[in-house]
Amino acid sequence: MRLSTLRDGTPDGRLLIVSPDATRFASAPVPTLQQLLEQWEAHAATCRDVSDFPDALDPQTLAAPLPRAWQWLDGSAYDSHGALMDQVFGITPERTGLPLMYQGLSDRFYGPFDDVPLPSEELGIDFEGEFGVIVGAVPMGTPAEAALDYVRLVVQINDWSLRALAGLEMKTGFGWVQAKPACAMAGIAVTPDELGDVWRDGRVCADLRVDWNGERFGQPNGAPMAFGFHELIAHAARTRALPAGTIIGSGTVSNANFREVGSTCIAERRGIEIVDEGAARTGFMRFGDLVRMEALLPDGRAPFGVIEQRVVQG
Amino acid sequence: MRLSTLRDGTPDGRLLIVSPDATRFASAPVPTLQQLLEQWEAHAATCRDVSDFPDALDPQTLAAPLPRAWQWLDGSAYDSHGALMDQVFGITPERTGLPLMYQGLSDRFYGPFDDVPLPSEELGIDFEGEFGVIVGAVPMGTPAEAALDYVRLVVQINDWSLRALAGLEMKTGFGWVQAKPACAMAGIAVTPDELGDVWRDGRVCADLRVDWNGERFGQPNGAPMAFGFHELIAHAARTRALPAGTIIGSGTVSNANFREVGSTCIAERRGIEIVDEGAARTGFMRFGDLVRMEALLPDGRAPFGVIEQRVVQG
Repeated sequence: MRLSTLRDGTPDGRLLIVSPDATRFASAPVPTLQQLLEQWEAHAATCRDVSDFPDALDPQTLAAPLPRAWQWLDGSAYDSHGALMDQVFGITPERTGLPLMYQGLSDRFYGPFDDVPLPSEELGIDFEGEFGVIVGAVPMGTPAEAALDYVRLVVQINDWSLRALAGLEMKTGFGWVQAKPACAMAGIAVTPDELGDVWRDGRVCADLRVDWNGERFGQPNGAPMAFGFHELIAHAARTRALPAGTIIGSGTVSNANFREVGSTCIAERRGIEIVDEGAARTGFMRFGDLVRMEALLPDGRAPFGVIEQRVVQG
Repeated sequence: MRLSTLRDGTPDGRLLIVSPDATRFASAPVPTLQQLLEQWEAHAATCRDVSDFPDALDPQTLAAPLPRAWQWLDGSAYDSHGALMDQVFGITPERTGLPLMYQGLSDRFYGPFDDVPLPSEELGIDFEGEFGVIVGAVPMGTPAEAALDYVRLVVQINDWSLRALAGLEMKTGFGWVQAKPACAMAGIAVTPDELGDVWRDGRVCADLRVDWNGERFGQPNGAPMAFGFHELIAHAARTRALPAGTIIGSGTVSNANFREVGSTCIAERRGIEIVDEGAARTGFMRFGDLVRMEALLPDGRAPFGVIEQRVVQG
């Protein structure tokens, strides 16, 4: 099942069921994705059984599948990215043996083609290509072994980041507020079965292709998460129940051979330059710059659609 | 104007307008506080003009005034608390000259008399007495000088904290997830004018009285915030627009003479014991323990009502 949300002037938009080839849609039996997530048992099967898609789908009319959420918890599960960042910035984070995770802004997620207004180019504007899952209501204390049962949908995310502010906020120990403005989501959320065996071990084992101003920037694969989504969900739910519609993120997709496959954020490329050449050559984004992100299945299909966004003066 | 929310089985409850003596209520022209905050210009004056309160108010029936919010950003604006914690735990946080703030769980706020289920007594269960403001929609980049115009309501908060997890999460740089389960709110949210000159310089200059299992634990005053709420709002809005209903917290209320006036969280008392006696004598909360919090105006009235909560096995 493939779900999208049509912009209709309301904060939550209107839920659509998308055809297998992502060119057409049908209306859903409940008005919003949040409501479907809260009433999954009552309506998901009906949505899944839809086979008639009467209307043409224009991807430009889509909001994020979940345009706002009650909770967004983002991990940092790719060790190759984390280790490089630590090395470059001389940070020695406490090694807890636990997943890294922060609580992010969840009151809005940009749609796949939305411009992103930010206050200044001086803040180190960066993208981060990620995968994420949207869960049903998860009880407090749910163990990792049971956590995949709560995964309703898989999504593709662009986690906008302001690097000039990020290091300072990390050093306070309080985590990020100013350094993490709203994220964006690709237009189509899919149930895990849509991904075939690309969804395995609680990981999205698809390539994530990122282009910046029309040039290939990276195409790492989502497989090598140090912790799978089941472990991220269990971590999040240790001391709290998660409401239906909680979104859990993987962190920047990164592979150990990033010198060959490239990166899904500028900070990682700059880190490689610092290690290899002594200084970063690549600058951060400028107003007007375009980033494009697309996850690819082995057969070449892009199950989530595409993210294509410009940063603009806010 | 004094606003409360009646538990009615829905996540957002039903908005009430409360009489000046907090014994009676009238129904509001919009069903929920979130809706009133989104349509403040259209409905706030009507609510303010209500003078007939037909029904008796039972505080035990109240939810948090805002039972869930799109955003909760908590500061740590009392330097006497921060400096003691740094000393005790050997932390040297980066001094940025900026307010400290983290993004917290906002999908639920407990009502004033709700039990708080937590997974284990071993996690260092602690309360934190705070003040907070609920704002209207704040544009990105709003300066501190203009930020008080967006304060719609003032609230009293109990920020539940799990100290055994907090230090470790700080050291990751990612901030708190497991260490910060849901907060609670006292039953009455008030417009700033209700506080008279206790609301000044963007601060709630009222005593906050805290009792633990019937014994006085502390009664510091809210005045000495290093940053006022206007500065906290501006900090929060530097790189993001804040949606109507965003809640901004002061952090644990603390006074420099905490040895005389006591504390609003156990961690602070333990810190004093460590400094003065070499070790903490006071333990954290046990299941069944009761914490009571009440802010007091100079005339003895408690404008927000009272928080009175037990921690229980989750």
